[in-house]
Amino acid sequence: MARVLDAEELEARARALLPSDIYDYYAGGSGSEAALRANTEAWRRVTLRPRVLRDVSRVDTAVSLAGARAGTPVCVAPTAFHNLAYPDGELASARGAATAGALYVLSTRSSRRIEDVAAVLAGHGGRWWFQVYVLRDRSLTEGLVRRAAEAGAQALVLTADAPVLGRKRRDRGAGFIPDEDFLANLGHLDDQASAEQAADVGLGDISWLRDISGGLPVLVKGVLRGDDAAACAAAGAAGVVVSNHGGRQLDAAVPTASALPEVAGALAGYPGCEVLVDGGLRSGLDVLRALALGARAAFVGRPVLWALACGGADGVRDLLTGLTAELGHEMALAGAATLADTAGL
Amino acid sequence: MARVLDAEELEARARALLPSDIYDYYAGGSGSEAALRANTEAWRRVTLRPRVLRDVSRVDTAVSLAGARAGTPVCVAPTAFHNLAYPDGELASARGAATAGALYVLSTRSSRRIEDVAAVLAGHGGRWWFQVYVLRDRSLTEGLVRRAAEAGAQALVLTADAPVLGRKRRDRGAGFIPDEDFLANLGHLDDQASAEQAADVGLGDISWLRDISGGLPVLVKGVLRGDDAAACAAAGAAGVVVSNHGGRQLDAAVPTASALPEVAGALAGYPGCEVLVDGGLRSGLDVLRALALGARAAFVGRPVLWALACGGADGVRDLLTGLTAELGHEMALAGAATLADTAGL
Amino acid sequence: MARVLDAEELEARARALLPSDIYDYYAGGSGSEAALRANTEAWRRVTLRPRVLRDVSRVDTAVSLAGARAGTPVCVAPTAFHNLAYPDGELASARGAATAGALYVLSTRSSRRIEDVAAVLAGHGGRWWFQVYVLRDRSLTEGLVRRAAEAGAQALVLTADAPVLGRKRRDRGAGFIPDEDFLANLGHLDDQASAEQAADVGLGDISWLRDISGGLPVLVKGVLRGDDAAACAAAGAAGVVVSNHGGRQLDAAVPTASALPEVAGALAGYPGCEVLVDGGLRSGLDVLRALALGARAAFVGRPVLWALACGGADGVRDLLTGLTAELGHEMALAGAATLADTAGL
Amino acid sequence: MARVLDAEELEARARALLPSDIYDYYAGGSGSEAALRANTEAWRRVTLRPRVLRDVSRVDTAVSLAGARAGTPVCVAPTAFHNLAYPDGELASARGAATAGALYVLSTRSSRRIEDVAAVLAGHGGRWWFQVYVLRDRSLTEGLVRRAAEAGAQALVLTADAPVLGRKRRDRGAGFIPDEDFLANLGHLDDQASAEQAADVGLGDISWLRDISGGLPVLVKGVLRGDDAAACAAAGAAGVVVSNHGGRQLDAAVPTASALPEVAGALAGYPGCEVLVDGGLRSGLDVLRALALGARAAFVGRPVLWALACGGADGVRDLLTGLTAELGHEMALAGAATLADTAGL
Repeated sequence: MARVLDAEELEARARALLPSDIYDYYAGGSGSEAALRANTEAWRRVTLRPRVLRDVSRVDTAVSLAGARAGTPVCVAPTAFHNLAYPDGELASARGAATAGALYVLSTRSSRRIEDVAAVLAGHGGRWWFQVYVLRDRSLTEGLVRRAAEAGAQALVLTADAPVLGRKRRDRGAGFIPDEDFLANLGHLDDQASAEQAADVGLGDISWLRDISGGLPVLVKGVLRGDDAAACAAAGAAGVVVSNHGGRQLDAAVPTASALPEVAGALAGYPGCEVLVDGGLRSGLDVLRALALGARAAFVGRPVLWALACGGADGVRDLLTGLTAELGHEMALAGAATLADTAGL
Repeated sequence: MARVLDAEELEARARALLPSDIYDYYAGGSGSEAALRANTEAWRRVTLRPRVLRDVSRVDTAVSLAGARAGTPVCVAPTAFHNLAYPDGELASARGAATAGALYVLSTRSSRRIEDVAAVLAGHGGRWWFQVYVLRDRSLTEGLVRRAAEAGAQALVLTADAPVLGRKRRDRGAGFIPDEDFLANLGHLDDQASAEQAADVGLGDISWLRDISGGLPVLVKGVLRGDDAAACAAAGAAGVVVSNHGGRQLDAAVPTASALPEVAGALAGYPGCEVLVDGGLRSGLDVLRALALGARAAFVGRPVLWALACGGADGVRDLLTGLTAELGHEMALAGAATLADTAGL
Repeated sequence: MARVLDAEELEARARALLPSDIYDYYAGGSGSEAALRANTEAWRRVTLRPRVLRDVSRVDTAVSLAGARAGTPVCVAPTAFHNLAYPDGELASARGAATAGALYVLSTRSSRRIEDVAAVLAGHGGRWWFQVYVLRDRSLTEGLVRRAAEAGAQALVLTADAPVLGRKRRDRGAGFIPDEDFLANLGHLDDQASAEQAADVGLGDISWLRDISGGLPVLVKGVLRGDDAAACAAAGAAGVVVSNHGGRQLDAAVPTASALPEVAGALAGYPGCEVLVDGGLRSGLDVLRALALGARAAFVGRPVLWALACGGADGVRDLLTGLTAELGHEMALAGAATLADTAGL
Repeated sequence: MARVLDAEELEARARALLPSDIYDYYAGGSGSEAALRANTEAWRRVTLRPRVLRDVSRVDTAVSLAGARAGTPVCVAPTAFHNLAYPDGELASARGAATAGALYVLSTRSSRRIEDVAAVLAGHGGRWWFQVYVLRDRSLTEGLVRRAAEAGAQALVLTADAPVLGRKRRDRGAGFIPDEDFLANLGHLDDQASAEQAADVGLGDISWLRDISGGLPVLVKGVLRGDDAAACAAAGAAGVVVSNHGGRQLDAAVPTASALPEVAGALAGYPGCEVLVDGGLRSGLDVLRALALGARAAFVGRPVLWALACGGADGVRDLLTGLTAELGHEMALAGAATLADTAGL
């Protein structure tokens, strides 16, 4: 097998391939980009204490997430407008995830229709969740959620950290702002404001989403505090994703590697509420760090976009397969034969 | 609305506009300028843990300070000799603050007469406090305080951290030292030393100032310790301003972001004594950090001078309006609909 | 006596002498080489609190290790393929160690036959241990262990942190990978895989090794956790070597200087289980730091290879003698007349 | 008054004036010079929490040290061979100290006779202590101590951290090593080794020195641990000097600013044993930091040598006067009217 490019190399290649405004739209963060940088740096600072004299002749990266089995805890994070990176957009990234056995999370801001992406996933045995922005006109949200459930989504991911949009320095001046043409799933709207994100989303929306989807598990994405995590669990969430939106919202937000232990600790008494994480994870070793700090799985965002830009579906597949192989290798080095063995490293 | 310049850009423009000795007089700190640099850097290191799933469809930045209502917790810090930055001096900065709905604190070392500044403020519905240096000849202080109370000041701010003047490296050699001509409010004095700051100011001066002003609330500026804060509260202070004089006095002083939690904790049992802060705050996000660490409001000093130099009253108004808008935006991102919600972020 | 070169100077000279792929094979670490760098840096950060008014007119560096006496706690770490550094390979390094009175640990991956190295050691009064990789075909391991015991090894060092091999960035592309020709002790094998390291080594192998060696003490190398150390002690280990394999295995592994106090604390209740350490030690002062943090002795790896490359057996002798002399000097400066006095510095 | 040069400027001027081997002899530290650098940096990191609303109209820097009154807590540290810096050597530095009202500590390795230096000090009303190395031939030490006591020394300072000499990198190669000609106080010796420092100095030497000096107080210099400090106090020491010999002995020694709080805490129960400190203090503000951390006075070493090289006795006087003035100014800024008020800043 030819050596798979690592996330840093993929980014460098994608940067050379993509128009600079699109690269900046993907790569940038809000404000001074402090949270963006801190995410990556915080993982690098996490040291592990490997175990020895354990049988690691078989290493198993399989995991169940909100009731669904996946071959790897490396998941595709929801990100917007994949057609900016590659002509087939989400059709390609979904195929890459499915062939790699990785969970795919489809964004509300997908540039391809839900049903079309779902068909690709189904054709390759892929499992997927649907990411939800609650919009000002909740009937629009309800329509999207019902379509996703109908199309086979196995859970919903409620984005909770975007009641308003973070301000990105790179978008000043001539910066790129995707327009509504990319919103393949909403179609023509008389009132544009109706599709803006609602600022009054609350804990009660967790059960609302479960109800309108016919009972799908709901995870809350954007949680950075133990008290919020416990409140989500008490309100019926099947999981939380520790996230600061990739450093694109509050510029002073704590890095996710720092928030993860607090959240995991607060959910120790809620076995039905799983902990996932995203933000700055760039290698299988970073995923192992996340597992050691209490995560059950990790979302990878920007590296998937770079892989998509560089190699389409095969690029995404190779990235996810490579991260999983690296994770397995590092687990063996750390004396962990299963994901459960990674706790407390 | 055209984009408002941020504090860093304003400083760069003001530096180009102002004579270098005046720029240095404003920008400099004492000694090695360690406290000056540490103030700004300490805020940058404060990370926040935003809350999610809160209703932030309406964000309210209103606050009451020592009994007076203001539309924003962003206040104009007392600084000296505004006519060095802009011909109209305090008449312009006061108008800017009043039109932005921000509290204005007038310095004893104002380059314009108290009554003239007060008239501008009254004309635009502005609220203001008067900053007090206790001078060696206390009758001079008493005269100033009575005039300020008469003119409509709603509180007094006693500067407590300047029993002697810090030594500023930038003022060595040809550095700029403002002379008495700028002291518009004292007029001709036979004995210059009588107008120097007293070195024996004590806790008893809090009630003395309240008495001679006819009962105005007195806040103490320059507090960096919990024990001092509690002593001020017990002596009748209506508030303390956590401050190291903008890094212009003790060069080894703790940064205000570090001192704030200790002071806020010590005053938890004194609800009548409010906590404010200044020093190195350069953005709405920094103000949110200050609120999260226990401040009720924040004073902004040098950025107001840069805005005044660049744009007069309108520049000051735009700066304060911009900081408040940014604060509101970051509050929404942090899940805080009111200033009370910012506690513990 | 001419001044002995320090470890940094030796590395620079060796780098100039050796082919670059061989230098990289020795010098490199896994992944981003974070663990490699952190090892060295962690020792530099350890500050000591020397004692005063102690009699240090005689400083004694003698130590007993797993029952054997050595004149110095500085030991030669097991490293592979010494003939890459110097024609005589382990015959030279062993002679250097023996003439310096330092314990020599022979690697399974020696480029010279066990019996030949043992003969050199015996001829110069040297004491030595044998480092063991448990291979997939355990009969191969058993053969090696029996030969080592027969040849006079006084203890076995079980490498526990290499169930799989770390991936080294410097070995990408044209990087050097030693082939089986160097494995002098295994001879021709029909099945290459039988000589790969086993991934199912466990605690039970400690007593197995003791048994097949006729009762030699067994130390476990690669321990970075207190719980693992206690488990090794309970399973009969005569000692543990706190090690992350010189930064060549898990790239996120904690530096050994950081892990050492935890391991030493966990073994406080197991007087029969000694604590040694390796990783990044580059001076007699670093050895003193290791002793102060709870180690009984320290393994030195790469510096021995540089000394071997630069000066053969005499180079190794001078390095070890120099490190010991420096250790004694620093002990005197720290008020420690014996190794026992170094505790708690 | 013309502005007094600060310690950094003095060093730069002295470096230009002095032969480079002499500059290096004074400026250098042992090993990697880590302790040397850490001393200075550690003071810079100490932040203070000034007090407000205290009467600082009169600031008093007076102090009693081992029963003797001095006008300032800034003292001249014992350093060797002042004639290398300035022709008159200790005669000049002693005169500078005496005219500044600062305590002078004369080194055993003085380049001028004890009696001659004492005469200068007496002529200017100066108080002084004598620094003692216990030499292998204790009768030599006894002779020096008796002469010092006779000449008017008011205390002895036993150097405890030099049982052997630290190795200084800058002295390698052509580095400067002062020879015995400089040892003005020992005269011709048949056996050079008899004048080397003893390596078996112990706690019992505290009372021995007191006895042979006719009852002078004895302070121990080089203490970096609380337990050692308590042992010195219990053995009758009148004080300890927290010191790592200016970074010239153990290169891994903790910086004195870090050791000071532990030592001061350990001596809280021994009111008869005073705490002094040296190492890296370069300004009046650094002296205030030392007082805040528990020191009663501070020794200044290298800056005195630079001042001596640049300006002889007057240079030393101006340095000490300037440091004291700066200390008083910073005390006022910190709300401390007396040295006792500096505790806990």
